[in-house]
Amino acid sequence: MSGSTFGTLFRVTNFGESHGPAIGCVIDGCPPGMALSEADIQPELDRRRPGTSRHVTQRNEADAVEILSGVYEGQTTGAPICLLIRNTDQRSKDYGNILDTFRPGHADYTYWRKYGIRDPRGGGRSSARLTAPTVAAGAVARKWLKAAYGTEFRGCMTALGEIEIPIEDWSQTGLNPFFAAGSSKVAELEAYMDALRKSGDSVGARIYVEATGVPVGLGEPLYDRLDADIAYAMMGLNAAKGVEIGDGFGVVAQRGSEHGDELTPEGFASNHAGGVLGGISTGQDLRVSVAIKPTSSIRTAKASIDRAGQPTQVETFGRHDPCVGIRATPIAEALLALVLMDHALRHRAQCGDVQLSQPPIPGQRG
Amino acid sequence: MSGSTFGTLFRVTNFGESHGPAIGCVIDGCPPGMALSEADIQPELDRRRPGTSRHVTQRNEADAVEILSGVYEGQTTGAPICLLIRNTDQRSKDYGNILDTFRPGHADYTYWRKYGIRDPRGGGRSSARLTAPTVAAGAVARKWLKAAYGTEFRGCMTALGEIEIPIEDWSQTGLNPFFAAGSSKVAELEAYMDALRKSGDSVGARIYVEATGVPVGLGEPLYDRLDADIAYAMMGLNAAKGVEIGDGFGVVAQRGSEHGDELTPEGFASNHAGGVLGGISTGQDLRVSVAIKPTSSIRTAKASIDRAGQPTQVETFGRHDPCVGIRATPIAEALLALVLMDHALRHRAQCGDVQLSQPPIPGQRG
Amino acid sequence: MSGSTFGTLFRVTNFGESHGPAIGCVIDGCPPGMALSEADIQPELDRRRPGTSRHVTQRNEADAVEILSGVYEGQTTGAPICLLIRNTDQRSKDYGNILDTFRPGHADYTYWRKYGIRDPRGGGRSSARLTAPTVAAGAVARKWLKAAYGTEFRGCMTALGEIEIPIEDWSQTGLNPFFAAGSSKVAELEAYMDALRKSGDSVGARIYVEATGVPVGLGEPLYDRLDADIAYAMMGLNAAKGVEIGDGFGVVAQRGSEHGDELTPEGFASNHAGGVLGGISTGQDLRVSVAIKPTSSIRTAKASIDRAGQPTQVETFGRHDPCVGIRATPIAEALLALVLMDHALRHRAQCGDVQLSQPPIPGQRG
Amino acid sequence: MSGSTFGTLFRVTNFGESHGPAIGCVIDGCPPGMALSEADIQPELDRRRPGTSRHVTQRNEADAVEILSGVYEGQTTGAPICLLIRNTDQRSKDYGNILDTFRPGHADYTYWRKYGIRDPRGGGRSSARLTAPTVAAGAVARKWLKAAYGTEFRGCMTALGEIEIPIEDWSQTGLNPFFAAGSSKVAELEAYMDALRKSGDSVGARIYVEATGVPVGLGEPLYDRLDADIAYAMMGLNAAKGVEIGDGFGVVAQRGSEHGDELTPEGFASNHAGGVLGGISTGQDLRVSVAIKPTSSIRTAKASIDRAGQPTQVETFGRHDPCVGIRATPIAEALLALVLMDHALRHRAQCGDVQLSQPPIPGQRG
Repeated sequence: MSGSTFGTLFRVTNFGESHGPAIGCVIDGCPPGMALSEADIQPELDRRRPGTSRHVTQRNEADAVEILSGVYEGQTTGAPICLLIRNTDQRSKDYGNILDTFRPGHADYTYWRKYGIRDPRGGGRSSARLTAPTVAAGAVARKWLKAAYGTEFRGCMTALGEIEIPIEDWSQTGLNPFFAAGSSKVAELEAYMDALRKSGDSVGARIYVEATGVPVGLGEPLYDRLDADIAYAMMGLNAAKGVEIGDGFGVVAQRGSEHGDELTPEGFASNHAGGVLGGISTGQDLRVSVAIKPTSSIRTAKASIDRAGQPTQVETFGRHDPCVGIRATPIAEALLALVLMDHALRHRAQCGDVQLSQPPIPGQRG
Repeated sequence: MSGSTFGTLFRVTNFGESHGPAIGCVIDGCPPGMALSEADIQPELDRRRPGTSRHVTQRNEADAVEILSGVYEGQTTGAPICLLIRNTDQRSKDYGNILDTFRPGHADYTYWRKYGIRDPRGGGRSSARLTAPTVAAGAVARKWLKAAYGTEFRGCMTALGEIEIPIEDWSQTGLNPFFAAGSSKVAELEAYMDALRKSGDSVGARIYVEATGVPVGLGEPLYDRLDADIAYAMMGLNAAKGVEIGDGFGVVAQRGSEHGDELTPEGFASNHAGGVLGGISTGQDLRVSVAIKPTSSIRTAKASIDRAGQPTQVETFGRHDPCVGIRATPIAEALLALVLMDHALRHRAQCGDVQLSQPPIPGQRG
Repeated sequence: MSGSTFGTLFRVTNFGESHGPAIGCVIDGCPPGMALSEADIQPELDRRRPGTSRHVTQRNEADAVEILSGVYEGQTTGAPICLLIRNTDQRSKDYGNILDTFRPGHADYTYWRKYGIRDPRGGGRSSARLTAPTVAAGAVARKWLKAAYGTEFRGCMTALGEIEIPIEDWSQTGLNPFFAAGSSKVAELEAYMDALRKSGDSVGARIYVEATGVPVGLGEPLYDRLDADIAYAMMGLNAAKGVEIGDGFGVVAQRGSEHGDELTPEGFASNHAGGVLGGISTGQDLRVSVAIKPTSSIRTAKASIDRAGQPTQVETFGRHDPCVGIRATPIAEALLALVLMDHALRHRAQCGDVQLSQPPIPGQRG
Repeated sequence: MSGSTFGTLFRVTNFGESHGPAIGCVIDGCPPGMALSEADIQPELDRRRPGTSRHVTQRNEADAVEILSGVYEGQTTGAPICLLIRNTDQRSKDYGNILDTFRPGHADYTYWRKYGIRDPRGGGRSSARLTAPTVAAGAVARKWLKAAYGTEFRGCMTALGEIEIPIEDWSQTGLNPFFAAGSSKVAELEAYMDALRKSGDSVGARIYVEATGVPVGLGEPLYDRLDADIAYAMMGLNAAKGVEIGDGFGVVAQRGSEHGDELTPEGFASNHAGGVLGGISTGQDLRVSVAIKPTSSIRTAKASIDRAGQPTQVETFGRHDPCVGIRATPIAEALLALVLMDHALRHRAQCGDVQLSQPPIPGQRG
């Protein structure tokens, strides 16, 4: 069944393959009357873009977005917004060896078994390149949420391999190639990545994203809870293997006397919950962490089989991210924005206007 | 917007409140021609049922399920199956103090802010009691999946507070009150819980669930990936704060050379991925962990506010689980079954018959 | 795939069989804070109820509705509302002869071919009895729409067989067994039906429904147009074979100079369009007609086959409506209300508050 | 809410405006492994294309379709198929007068009231031009259905204004500008249209479409009946005001003894039902009629108001179809194909392989 649509009311339908003529998405359900142009979207695509440092894939894609519909004289009309990104740098020869063999850790095997056919060029549909339309759609959601509620999103890398990266200074995230929120670890990360790249190996990472200025009351229990949809979004990020909200797996060893966030007339006194209670936003900051596995494309030979089931060896050359986690930060921000956007519209449908976290219950204090 | 339906093709719509006349669900989309009676469902409800040991809430509910529709002469007809569970032990007095104040860590505040009204009796709609219909629906899915593909589900507790519980012997999970897969830690867990209960506090837990005999090819990228939907399901479990698939957060410090599961003519040589690649099942076992926060209902006083925004203190007496994680195991199994069931039907819609993991690529070897 | 849910945001999931223990529905997405009790719903069920005159089936069902969830202290909470109607008068012997043969004009054959199994008792799932939960859900929608916008619904029969029934006086519809909007034809209709019943035959009918006080702007083109969803709803009415909006099939022979409704500062000057332009409500009255085929259960023998494909003859005795169109009026009103309710919430999600047809463009004048 | 997606499993998301840079759609859920190229789609677009005779709009659009995704080496991969059609002949000056006034019978007023903004160029989103992507998607569905089940679609005009057009010879539909299934009325229709065009007026029409080789068992009651979804599709056709299935409004005056189609070992003896019983396909031909209103763009002045609510007069010059019904035939065929395609996949999801109408119950005999 069709699974390429994200959201229920702010619906993003993603299309395209890594080495096809174009990728893109159609956003259906965007509120009318919002100023929108390519200039609102391109900066987010540029943050995710390959080729921006030596630590990411050297594929050279401008990722220039074109708005094909849904905007008239600079304003959204309520009609579907088609965003198109032409592919320009497809070197199919890089991927010739993967037509007949299944790369370990990749989706080659599962796509082939599921569909009986797969587009092997650059990973085809399973390429991380398909996160670009998600990021583009996220930019539209971010603009609307900021104007409507003052909601903002930011993310950073908090671990790369064994290296923990503390959050020291959010203003640094755009100033280093790792989305590190601070400069103290950057030199260590550079050296680590250079060594890794030489060894032909790859490594995992942990990403943290948060939203501030979140309206209270978003989330649709019993099942479509805000935290459930955040988990869906984040685990759908290529290479994600774990998602935490608030204290995450830290809650296992916590006591209730320690965990439950107290309320005061000025707001919540702490935020162990990560901004969600009972599946509904509290108005506090949303706090989310995601574990990203090491890139599966490595130069080290690994055992595999070919389409006939015969044993073979696979080494992957070509242009790859040695840590896919590095470019995951803007994608995770976009996904969080898409979840909130959809839930803002869902809330409005059933309950009317969205409530901001105003006093006397002003949201997060701590 | 309506958020009480789980699934897209095997649709479970949940209704009811903790202290209303009844709870239940309607399953729409169940394949016709499957033998089904209450006896197929009741055992799973009994595993989740309150009052089965001194370590869980002492509320006494038979949780007797009644099939109201969709079955004719013992067989499913393809029509919606309504499952009804009457509530019998509603002591509303236990909850009188929560009408006007917001219990820290609970959904009281968010429900009130979202809807402007809430049913405070026993947590109303946000009570963990509403997992019973989920478990009942899961039992229907389990029966179908087992008959169709041989798929089976099992789960256990792997940590309670600081105590790690190794998986030693799956046959033990039904023989102790903790769903521990082994007996070596049971005495320690008993003592721990007794002390906790006396202290009036609560504690978190970690749950592990797995599916065996999984068909290959389930999952609908780009967004409705199997792992994304598993994360949605598990994070929607009451009190869940984290979800891992395969090696989970362990991947952060892994190398690609270590993580990628090699393929051999006899199947995969390992299962770091947890049974999903590119959002599609590999045919290996699905491996999922969930972090459950400590119960928010504790006897220790905590600061809060009332509906007028004035400061107050909240202590929660009454009948509660000091570790909600204990009863979470059968619920997590049911959720995993519902995800697989829905994806089995989704796959069949687009791609035709589901493929089992037969040789020459026989699924997991390791 | 599951097809028993009506609506996208005000979702009504219908369950039950004609001769099972109960029928009912779950409404998910109802706005919170509306006063609601069984007394709001029962009168609409009573209008649809069998056994109210000699011209309809003599099955005796109280159709007493019970609210099982979603209401606390007389107000909707935003949680799903389960409405349950117990079946009380199931004489299965009436239907014994239809187990093995397919009644011409009935769903026996198609259900059997689709599902490989069918519940033959009283038509099982395909019985018109299953419109009762639709009517019950419609009553909830009607209450909300009236309070929110002043929207009201009314319907009448405009033809029974060859007899055209003019709309003369809406206050008469509840005072005769035919939902005729006037008394001038009632005696003729009584005689017609008495003769028909004696002959063992059945007849078709045409139903007209309208909504007044309709907000402007409801409908979600490109595909989910208001008129498209009205057609879906009405053609889904048991035995419906045609739907018209506004001038309906009369437009075929019209000129554009005649058809297009002119606008004036006081509103539209006519309503050929039936209240919809471009798939969106104009604020004028919605005008809908439905053709209902003659009941397929007749005492005249007709040729058919049995499950082995062998020829046979079928006569249907038992309790049937000789004109199913008679009881269709309240059902059609309910369906129109459900469509408008869903579209009111859909509109609000994307565009914010619904606009009423205030001056300077006050809706229908003519 | 987003309403630009047609279907639930074979999902077609439509985007674009009449005078924007491009129109198109994304098809999600197409089965993999089907040969597909632009050559499969273009002929259907050419049938719908403007400018093919003097009786339709003289806008000159090549309507050349480009497949942007979802096809690899000439085969569908199961990934979303994006179909793009560039707009080439946008003379915005033709429509300058409609920016500030609301054309009677058009969607100008309702779009403006709904969204607070509208793209007036060529009708923007409400233009009949947006049926082109629907036709393109329909071509994909038609190819799959024909290969899988032998299902085929054909349509014709059966009335233009007062002129009834009998179905005499299906092979004629492509040989005259009216999709008339016979040549006997063509000269009369030519003369009629020439006179109409000179008068500056427009006229309505009735369209008939049918499907042959329909699998038995398609349709998802209780609500998502096949006939309900056909009505939704057809009433969503621009300018449609009525839909009939089988005998349609003719059933009002029928007796049950006459209407119910008898079954014989060789199949059904007649087809009053139009191929649907109980909302499920019988395996007989599907028979559908649609009433199309006269084009609202006429040269005759009509009263209207401007955006300030002041009275004005509107005459519409420019390039218009004097009978939009003429080009509706291929669109209606496409819509019927899309409905059947979606239901074929829905059926397969719940019930497994679709059954063809084989003996001993071979579908329609009469």
